[in-house]
Amino acid sequence: MQTDTGKKTRVAIVGASGYTGVELLRILKLHPAVEVTVVTSRQNSGTRVEELFPSLHGYSHLKFTAPDMDEICREADVVFTAVPHQTAMAVVPGFLEAGLKVIDLSADFRIREQAVYEKWYQEHSAPQLLNEAVYGLPEIYGEQVASARLLANPGCYPTSTILPLAPLLKAGAVKPENIIVDSKSGTSGAGRGASVATLFCEVNEGFKAYKVGDHRHTPEIEQELSAAAGTDIKINFTPHLVPMNRGILSTIYCKLSDSDATTANIHNILYEFYANAPFVRVLPEGTFPNVSSVRGSNYCDIGAKADRRTGTLILVSVIDNLVKGASGQAVQNMNIMCGLEETLSLEAGALFP
Amino acid sequence: MQTDTGKKTRVAIVGASGYTGVELLRILKLHPAVEVTVVTSRQNSGTRVEELFPSLHGYSHLKFTAPDMDEICREADVVFTAVPHQTAMAVVPGFLEAGLKVIDLSADFRIREQAVYEKWYQEHSAPQLLNEAVYGLPEIYGEQVASARLLANPGCYPTSTILPLAPLLKAGAVKPENIIVDSKSGTSGAGRGASVATLFCEVNEGFKAYKVGDHRHTPEIEQELSAAAGTDIKINFTPHLVPMNRGILSTIYCKLSDSDATTANIHNILYEFYANAPFVRVLPEGTFPNVSSVRGSNYCDIGAKADRRTGTLILVSVIDNLVKGASGQAVQNMNIMCGLEETLSLEAGALFP
Amino acid sequence: MQTDTGKKTRVAIVGASGYTGVELLRILKLHPAVEVTVVTSRQNSGTRVEELFPSLHGYSHLKFTAPDMDEICREADVVFTAVPHQTAMAVVPGFLEAGLKVIDLSADFRIREQAVYEKWYQEHSAPQLLNEAVYGLPEIYGEQVASARLLANPGCYPTSTILPLAPLLKAGAVKPENIIVDSKSGTSGAGRGASVATLFCEVNEGFKAYKVGDHRHTPEIEQELSAAAGTDIKINFTPHLVPMNRGILSTIYCKLSDSDATTANIHNILYEFYANAPFVRVLPEGTFPNVSSVRGSNYCDIGAKADRRTGTLILVSVIDNLVKGASGQAVQNMNIMCGLEETLSLEAGALFP
Amino acid sequence: MQTDTGKKTRVAIVGASGYTGVELLRILKLHPAVEVTVVTSRQNSGTRVEELFPSLHGYSHLKFTAPDMDEICREADVVFTAVPHQTAMAVVPGFLEAGLKVIDLSADFRIREQAVYEKWYQEHSAPQLLNEAVYGLPEIYGEQVASARLLANPGCYPTSTILPLAPLLKAGAVKPENIIVDSKSGTSGAGRGASVATLFCEVNEGFKAYKVGDHRHTPEIEQELSAAAGTDIKINFTPHLVPMNRGILSTIYCKLSDSDATTANIHNILYEFYANAPFVRVLPEGTFPNVSSVRGSNYCDIGAKADRRTGTLILVSVIDNLVKGASGQAVQNMNIMCGLEETLSLEAGALFP
Repeated sequence: MQTDTGKKTRVAIVGASGYTGVELLRILKLHPAVEVTVVTSRQNSGTRVEELFPSLHGYSHLKFTAPDMDEICREADVVFTAVPHQTAMAVVPGFLEAGLKVIDLSADFRIREQAVYEKWYQEHSAPQLLNEAVYGLPEIYGEQVASARLLANPGCYPTSTILPLAPLLKAGAVKPENIIVDSKSGTSGAGRGASVATLFCEVNEGFKAYKVGDHRHTPEIEQELSAAAGTDIKINFTPHLVPMNRGILSTIYCKLSDSDATTANIHNILYEFYANAPFVRVLPEGTFPNVSSVRGSNYCDIGAKADRRTGTLILVSVIDNLVKGASGQAVQNMNIMCGLEETLSLEAGALFP
Repeated sequence: MQTDTGKKTRVAIVGASGYTGVELLRILKLHPAVEVTVVTSRQNSGTRVEELFPSLHGYSHLKFTAPDMDEICREADVVFTAVPHQTAMAVVPGFLEAGLKVIDLSADFRIREQAVYEKWYQEHSAPQLLNEAVYGLPEIYGEQVASARLLANPGCYPTSTILPLAPLLKAGAVKPENIIVDSKSGTSGAGRGASVATLFCEVNEGFKAYKVGDHRHTPEIEQELSAAAGTDIKINFTPHLVPMNRGILSTIYCKLSDSDATTANIHNILYEFYANAPFVRVLPEGTFPNVSSVRGSNYCDIGAKADRRTGTLILVSVIDNLVKGASGQAVQNMNIMCGLEETLSLEAGALFP
Repeated sequence: MQTDTGKKTRVAIVGASGYTGVELLRILKLHPAVEVTVVTSRQNSGTRVEELFPSLHGYSHLKFTAPDMDEICREADVVFTAVPHQTAMAVVPGFLEAGLKVIDLSADFRIREQAVYEKWYQEHSAPQLLNEAVYGLPEIYGEQVASARLLANPGCYPTSTILPLAPLLKAGAVKPENIIVDSKSGTSGAGRGASVATLFCEVNEGFKAYKVGDHRHTPEIEQELSAAAGTDIKINFTPHLVPMNRGILSTIYCKLSDSDATTANIHNILYEFYANAPFVRVLPEGTFPNVSSVRGSNYCDIGAKADRRTGTLILVSVIDNLVKGASGQAVQNMNIMCGLEETLSLEAGALFP
Repeated sequence: MQTDTGKKTRVAIVGASGYTGVELLRILKLHPAVEVTVVTSRQNSGTRVEELFPSLHGYSHLKFTAPDMDEICREADVVFTAVPHQTAMAVVPGFLEAGLKVIDLSADFRIREQAVYEKWYQEHSAPQLLNEAVYGLPEIYGEQVASARLLANPGCYPTSTILPLAPLLKAGAVKPENIIVDSKSGTSGAGRGASVATLFCEVNEGFKAYKVGDHRHTPEIEQELSAAAGTDIKINFTPHLVPMNRGILSTIYCKLSDSDATTANIHNILYEFYANAPFVRVLPEGTFPNVSSVRGSNYCDIGAKADRRTGTLILVSVIDNLVKGASGQAVQNMNIMCGLEETLSLEAGALFP
């Protein structure tokens, strides 16, 4: 960002050799007010960014380095931590103390209740920060985001679930009981680690549910839906693996509060809620979204149908898991935290086909 | 099949140039008791089968012909009608009158109530046959199948839904209300007609729901679930299109009758019900199926989890939509109708990877 | 572009509902000096752009119209003709007479010799323009592009072939005889028309050569290689269809003029030739390109190896067929023709994964 | 196989948890004369076959064991070694001494010249067997296969290259110089080991050449083409990775000996050579093969075109790399070695779509 003196905001990316790291670099390449100064990767220390990721044309000057707290604090104003949970909580306090703004893409600061976090993950070593961390869904927490020092960037599945549901729960249009979230994700969500389960031949021409009744995004979704509804919510959440690179589609089933409610009623609530949200698009009645319409973009598209036969509201949302579900949303949050235009470097449309 | 005189059963396939037609030919190639004598295709009349479908090695002698009722009745003992609904009802009565056994892969004889059929499809021109037609899920209607003259081969989505649910509804283990069926299908389910919506570039790297709250397989599923439960059932059914050739995975959410029921209880009911079913495999507890494990085979794999947090039972089933969801099941039915071993020419395992 | 009076260049796209049309709209969305005023599509006249292509967020104001020469000439300064060959030659002369700059994405003005064009395509109705048209490879014809009124935007296969070969032929480093071009293209190259051959299930998990020894890009490649070599060149060109949306990789085999030449010698010629070309990247020795490194971007990446065992030079080049192979290159040409920065709206890196 | 006493041939598979191992199990499931008694996998010792590979329905009795020479020699008549090169040469001599027939799917016994093997691979510890080993292309070495004790099952790329070329070189129809083999393989050829390079997201929507001028199948191809031509042959061989599970397509460029030769002349030589080969199909003139036409089958389809413009013969061949390129060919060889019908358990057609 341009500070008073016209200098660019200096950005460090910790854990830059995973898919969310590459995606941050891709997005930030075009950012007019940002300069990426440090990219760390233990494994690839010393390698040029362009060598490891030939897709990143124009980063020939930048090399991965081993993470070094002093260097980062010296060279950066903002740090993105794109490391696994548990690793993040170990480094975030240091960055904050040094005065950096932190945008954490791990799960470590998303859950407000320490006990809930520790039940689904493991012990938390920096619980004092849980209260301060702002949950980075700008469409819902925009004001808090603007003044945040530590931002917990939401999970991909939660983003795709909370955006369509929260406004309806707030408005009391749907019942808080019996919400079912059936989500389908592209394979980049599984990360860039070598593993047999995500080999091309294991995923291609396949389709499966995984972590049935047991996925760690469940408490994150429940926390935010409960906040929206003002009451405790338990959901069924089932993720599935789709043979495609990017994209999440969530099909959500819930019960209408008013059995006479129409699709138009639901649309109106959503339209109004997102009237000024640059990245959420509520589709015309009778239209449902395709992940291919948001590929590579920061948009979330939402369709809805009130099924009068069964009294059920069906919501369908799509995002690109690496953009609105991770790195794009992180940049959107950074823009807001730095007082910049929310959409900077995120204006590109989707890549289709 | 071998008749008394040792002759093979002569088989005709009407509408043989679609994906279910090719699949019938692939499966029947190895059938020891069957000879395919007629394959019809208006569009490809005169073309050698092997020319249109080079995958069908070994059919060099066979040519597509324009459908000719007299020829078929003369040359075949059994006829598979693999034509669109409405076309099937126009030809099936003639075949029956001529004494052929008919296995209809369209929707025309699956719905027992004429009014229901006509609400979801269009006017029915042969309603007198609706009562006689046997719904061809051999795991449930095996005896009726054995003596059927007209067999209505089930839809792909219904097969994937009824197999896991029917035994549990029969046993009263799940409640008949609030059943949600979220299904995901490979693209071959959309058929082989030229259309922009199923072009490679439109489907690949995409994922969408379609016909939300409005798919014609809904009444077929409801009919069979209601029969199993002994009470009228309405479901939510949402199909999705997956960028893969073959396979359906259905994720089914329903409420446990006994909130203390365990996954093991559910498994036991399913194991027992399918103890002698050669093509249904109930997976060990904690295991969920992948469509890639049934690709090209006639198997249906089922996983289950009783989610105590929400009182919900989650069932996941997979089939190959062209095999157990269409042509394989049709051959299974034919085997039973002709007094042959149920598994003949269907013993092949899945093609993985 | 900003003219003296600060107004934007008004752009029309004729034939905007195919994949190259969508891609032009995607790229131009972010162009700071361009306004798209007319998009035509006979078939989709009256439809909003965003309705037909939900990926094109932010075009909600624009509707497809039936092509109307008068309207286009009134509303546009530059016109992209993204229609099939033979259709282009019918409309281009009218646009030129009305004073518009024309960038033609069809093949109609790429071949300089009328007889050659008519041998591979059909009769030419505007042969008087063949001499004037500039072949739009800016890396080779940059100066002519700058002053062009009618620009023939190159074919995708030719772009991927000429860029690696032309500098080497010019330098005399490879022999003009026995050049073999084995190209592999994603499926978007086949266009957006409904056809069985490009259905998802026909392409996915398949791979084939097509138009073996008979593809219409052959004379276009030969024309440009001959120009570079200063002698008549005949090549072998074999295209293949790859189950992916975008991308062309060409593997080129040719004979080294000097049998002692090393890979380094070849690299030096290429590095030097493309030293100032913003979109051509010659990879380090020992490195070969992947189409996934240019997906969605205007880059061409090139790798080379001098195989001393056989005296053969192997060149491997990749482009995104819809970007550098079509719409991106068209915008690059437009930028140059309008006196704008060559890279405007084309700076985005590749989308990976 | 049925021995005199009617007993089945007992088969062991060493290294059964890779893709060629699974494929052997899939194919042998239906073999009427074979019983699989031992399947070894160091990594998965103790795991049920059906648990690791749910696609292998019907193997519920079989468990992976750690490889144990004594057990294998006691329990098997024939052993398939599906282990990496260098591992194979360590175990094969022991099996032979114990009187087993050995079909080795590694590269260890394919190269006749020890020096050539050691140049491309590493030191050979059992060179005394190189002369005895029979190169298992039954279409060419059928008689030797029948009496082989140690069979070297060919590589996938070599199979796809030698089948179309060898008859033409034998007949003197093409020149031995300047042969170029441009091959494209599905990803299963890279094996089932965890690696970043073969992750779904790295391969999908990508396409690349690899080991340019440096692939280890080069000497194997050259050995067999030289044998066919009766003169020393050097080729250019470039493999490429295709985003699909199975299949190899090789496009081969060579010079016609007689510049007046027609495509028909070439076809006649191939037709005649393969007149009695059950798994090689020479396509009609003007027709070229697609890997999807052989998926899951043991066929090799070949197309040819004599390009008079350039005096070049273009051959296109396809196989399934896991079947005719590995496990299917291995079973074909086993059938012949055991005096069984060559086609046993290999009669299935291709799975399309």
